[in-house]
Amino acid sequence: MTTTSEARARRPATIDRNDPALWHELAQQLRVDSVRCSSAAGSGHPTSSMSAADLMAVLIARHFRYDPARPRDPHNDHLVFSKGHASPLLYSMFKAMGLIDDTEFLTYRQFGSRLQGHPVPLLPWVEVATGSLGQGLPIGVGMAIAAKRLDRLPTRVWVLCGDSEMAEGSMDEALEHAGHLGLENLIAILDVNRLGQTGETMHGWDLDAYRDRAEVFGWRTIEVDGHDAEAIDAAYTEASTPSEGPTIVVARTIKGYGVSEVADKNGWHGKPLPHPEQAIAELGGERHLVVPPLAPDTAREAWRFPSGSLELPRYEVGSEAPTRQAYGDALAALGSANGMVVALDGEVSNSTYAEIFREAHPERYFEMYIAEQQMVTAAVGIQVRGWIPFASTFAAFLTRAYDFVRMAAISRAGIRLSGSHAGVSIGEDGPSQMALEDLAMMRAVHGSTVLYPCDANQAAQLVALMADLPGISYIRTTRAKTPVIYGPDERFEVGGSKVVRSSGDDAIAIVTAGITVHEALKAADTLAGEGIKVRVIDAYSVKPIDTATLKAAAAATGGRLITVEDHWPEGGLGAAVLDVFADEEVRPRVVKLAVPDMPGSGKPAELLAAAGIDAKAIAAAARRLAAAGPQLAAKPAS
Amino acid sequence: MTTTSEARARRPATIDRNDPALWHELAQQLRVDSVRCSSAAGSGHPTSSMSAADLMAVLIARHFRYDPARPRDPHNDHLVFSKGHASPLLYSMFKAMGLIDDTEFLTYRQFGSRLQGHPVPLLPWVEVATGSLGQGLPIGVGMAIAAKRLDRLPTRVWVLCGDSEMAEGSMDEALEHAGHLGLENLIAILDVNRLGQTGETMHGWDLDAYRDRAEVFGWRTIEVDGHDAEAIDAAYTEASTPSEGPTIVVARTIKGYGVSEVADKNGWHGKPLPHPEQAIAELGGERHLVVPPLAPDTAREAWRFPSGSLELPRYEVGSEAPTRQAYGDALAALGSANGMVVALDGEVSNSTYAEIFREAHPERYFEMYIAEQQMVTAAVGIQVRGWIPFASTFAAFLTRAYDFVRMAAISRAGIRLSGSHAGVSIGEDGPSQMALEDLAMMRAVHGSTVLYPCDANQAAQLVALMADLPGISYIRTTRAKTPVIYGPDERFEVGGSKVVRSSGDDAIAIVTAGITVHEALKAADTLAGEGIKVRVIDAYSVKPIDTATLKAAAAATGGRLITVEDHWPEGGLGAAVLDVFADEEVRPRVVKLAVPDMPGSGKPAELLAAAGIDAKAIAAAARRLAAAGPQLAAKPAS
Repeated sequence: MTTTSEARARRPATIDRNDPALWHELAQQLRVDSVRCSSAAGSGHPTSSMSAADLMAVLIARHFRYDPARPRDPHNDHLVFSKGHASPLLYSMFKAMGLIDDTEFLTYRQFGSRLQGHPVPLLPWVEVATGSLGQGLPIGVGMAIAAKRLDRLPTRVWVLCGDSEMAEGSMDEALEHAGHLGLENLIAILDVNRLGQTGETMHGWDLDAYRDRAEVFGWRTIEVDGHDAEAIDAAYTEASTPSEGPTIVVARTIKGYGVSEVADKNGWHGKPLPHPEQAIAELGGERHLVVPPLAPDTAREAWRFPSGSLELPRYEVGSEAPTRQAYGDALAALGSANGMVVALDGEVSNSTYAEIFREAHPERYFEMYIAEQQMVTAAVGIQVRGWIPFASTFAAFLTRAYDFVRMAAISRAGIRLSGSHAGVSIGEDGPSQMALEDLAMMRAVHGSTVLYPCDANQAAQLVALMADLPGISYIRTTRAKTPVIYGPDERFEVGGSKVVRSSGDDAIAIVTAGITVHEALKAADTLAGEGIKVRVIDAYSVKPIDTATLKAAAAATGGRLITVEDHWPEGGLGAAVLDVFADEEVRPRVVKLAVPDMPGSGKPAELLAAAGIDAKAIAAAARRLAAAGPQLAAKPAS
Repeated sequence: MTTTSEARARRPATIDRNDPALWHELAQQLRVDSVRCSSAAGSGHPTSSMSAADLMAVLIARHFRYDPARPRDPHNDHLVFSKGHASPLLYSMFKAMGLIDDTEFLTYRQFGSRLQGHPVPLLPWVEVATGSLGQGLPIGVGMAIAAKRLDRLPTRVWVLCGDSEMAEGSMDEALEHAGHLGLENLIAILDVNRLGQTGETMHGWDLDAYRDRAEVFGWRTIEVDGHDAEAIDAAYTEASTPSEGPTIVVARTIKGYGVSEVADKNGWHGKPLPHPEQAIAELGGERHLVVPPLAPDTAREAWRFPSGSLELPRYEVGSEAPTRQAYGDALAALGSANGMVVALDGEVSNSTYAEIFREAHPERYFEMYIAEQQMVTAAVGIQVRGWIPFASTFAAFLTRAYDFVRMAAISRAGIRLSGSHAGVSIGEDGPSQMALEDLAMMRAVHGSTVLYPCDANQAAQLVALMADLPGISYIRTTRAKTPVIYGPDERFEVGGSKVVRSSGDDAIAIVTAGITVHEALKAADTLAGEGIKVRVIDAYSVKPIDTATLKAAAAATGGRLITVEDHWPEGGLGAAVLDVFADEEVRPRVVKLAVPDMPGSGKPAELLAAAGIDAKAIAAAARRLAAAGPQLAAKPAS
């Protein structure tokens, strides 16, 4: 047993990357540091870190090519901790690479520290947040797509995966897509430490179970003892040789390796070690080796596609077109204007009209088949080095990827999502294909932008705006053709709205978006004939919403608003409108029209009527509200 | 070519189930009817139906055991159309089995018809809704679990899968779990017709790609020509022989088989045939065979576990306990009281405390590992024949299963979900583990119930209530210990709330739930010392919410409400409160306190403070609102 001071003294004067003794020392340092930081924090996952320490030590010493001073450089290798709970190991690596000092290192999990419980990109060397399992590998697929097919550089993507997370179907989606795309630049390192949070995984140390699965999907597979550094080095060296597809290194490891009190014992998941001093001593004491990563190969410039001027599609006022088609038309135009724009679709590109982009820019279109989780995570991986991904499917099926959208927000990722076939207005296909919760879902994403156009020119303009938006942006499109009511030169903005009907002395304001804008306009016509003047507001920017226009409408109408949306009553446009006024002194009455009951199949008009969101229902609500008289009053004296 | 009248004349006097000629005739009838109903509707998926017609004809004639008069009988085989868009085929089968007549059959996709675009359980022979791909097989896993491990009957589960949907990771989760559990009563029939919606699948007619994948997961695999009825019969016969695990019949089929104009041609997905009369003629004309299903084996009674009296856990007022522990304690008690109660967990049962149920009732506990999609769909499958499943994981990870929860609502399924570790109050693990959108997500599920207890006795009572609730119910639990403020005999109800602090002449009402109830009580103490009297409402039933108590509070406080929630500002408790008053004449001012920015790691108290939802922030908001004076006024005369 060595003391800490003895260990410090062993720090070598020069680093010989090829010396297995260094690999061992480095691995032990990573273990010791994983113990140290989690003990300092009083929480964390040291045993899950210790199993993979040899795998990561060899990676740092001999294989990972990265310029820490230029973390966004496309020549850099990527490193993703799909098992994000092994953050003590990741931060120990950052320390070992000389990126953080020991003082910051020991702020692990403290309030305000960049070294959070699970990795987040507040650290410049963390490209995506992980911690919801099963996401790092599919994100890695996106990074590998970007490197191979977009940047066209020999960058590699290293993904450290846990065995427990192999139970997530998203990992199979990643295995299948990486194999299908022949992503030879993707190297998964599977840390098979046998033990999950509560007990043994389904496959224990049956490495073949993982190897066979990956082989079926077209991967090169290498099994190793995950504590034999020379075998690991040989595996990574082989993984870096030419191949037809991705490589997985399936490593048999021991959870808590190196500390007899916890090694391969159940019950130590997510807990600091019981006797850290003793554990550190057993590991040979503290070390403070610094092994900077190898420099990336910067000989070749990243590939760039040509950019030109933006020529958005133009639709004639009075004609009809579906907003989903405008999405496709605009996206193709955007692709011509900006060579960084990329499109992905979930095997419904003839429904979402992403096929127009595919036809125009086949090199920048990626077919993600019916795998929405992989589609969204691929977009997250693709955006890491500055590409601008748009991903589309039926809006209902974006619910499949909600955890991935949630995590993308934590990743501070810039991704653009398009959901077609919103609401009951899709008609005959029935409720399984109707998005009725997407506005609620996407509004409840931190920093998100939610857009819902009602006509084709507006949709095209909003698509163009999305290219420059940070964070998660979402556009909801409609299956049916809708009348073109805006000219092609009309301008729209995030946070904006349009007053599409106003008489100057309106009794009611109808706030709506998308297909029901046209129902509201029909209702306004009917009501005008009855002497009820209504204002119609097209609130195409559902988040952020146009508070000024809504407040003006409340004031002008004596506080009589009607919201109409092809969506469940919870969390959508009506909720956004209520939020505007919640804490205001002047609060209008808001009649919310939304889909109250489970719809079935039928013609769009039948379903809009049944849901009480068609022109007739809107007119009826307006009559009731008009008859109730003004709803605003001055605040009483207190 | 035969005419329709000739074909009708061929209806045999007696049915010989063992006659391959019958199988062929039946298959052609299913094809003809798929063409007929989709042509009548003007939409639908006939070509996707025609590929699987032989597979289904042989199933009806020789293998499917089902009593249509007793659709919920546990002795019945199950049939799930995982490729729900092949609904024309399913309804053609219902007609061929004599369950619906031709008149109803031709109402396909019409408004008000039970024969919706994708199957829903308005039809008594449809047990679950499908149409979002990749869900039928994992639901089938749940049904097979119920048959084998709960009902303990030789019931089989037949699931027709499409090849396109094999790209969904949820299918791999199902393959893995079925293999792991050795569900020999599960038979997947994979219709490999090569063509998806927009083009060829990743694997085309590479049947081995599917076979090998299933084999890796422990399935018995049989490859067949999906248009060779005798080979199909042999495959099903083999699938019904004893085995160590589930069976998959991988069938090479042709999309649009039987009609040369569309057979194996791209571009005909989801469209009626261009020339239906000609197609029907090519298929040999209309037939109206009726082949009732074989009777199920009812010799043995379904197994039932003992039931007893309900002895809920009791926590002492003034002690502290986490509501997640109360979930586990109460669920175990419920399991003793009701032998139909079943629990599932996503490999975090020591965090959700589902482990208490597992220890008490190991035969009714199912470990779903880290596969939330499979967990929720297993629950859907398990509830079909009357079992009462509760499924738990971290609330954040229920986002992984949102599409499955959405579809469960369309299935009219009764499932109970428990999400632990809600909100920033979990502390050091950071945002990836914090549910901050779950209330919004679960409120926007049709017919859902959303519960959020603040103490252990309340949590236990609510768990007991959930057992009897229809539809989707959700309980949000907290990681931290919280003070027990209710006695063990206090009663709670869905749609209820508790006024936990009131002076009779309160200036402010604070509406909150869960962990922030205790922050509100602390704030109330502080404010009382300053002469500001506040009412504190524990709105533990977030949906449905207690409108009467909220209205009374608005009236009593001069319209001054504060909502507090450990959740994003969108779609949660604050939104539920605003919805109560939106269309009322008396509308309070509502100050919404929620989590405004992306949290990090830290101590729970630090994070509650940073989010502005701790006692100090609540007190500050109350002071501001109190100073603003009463906020209600009578409606002005119109």
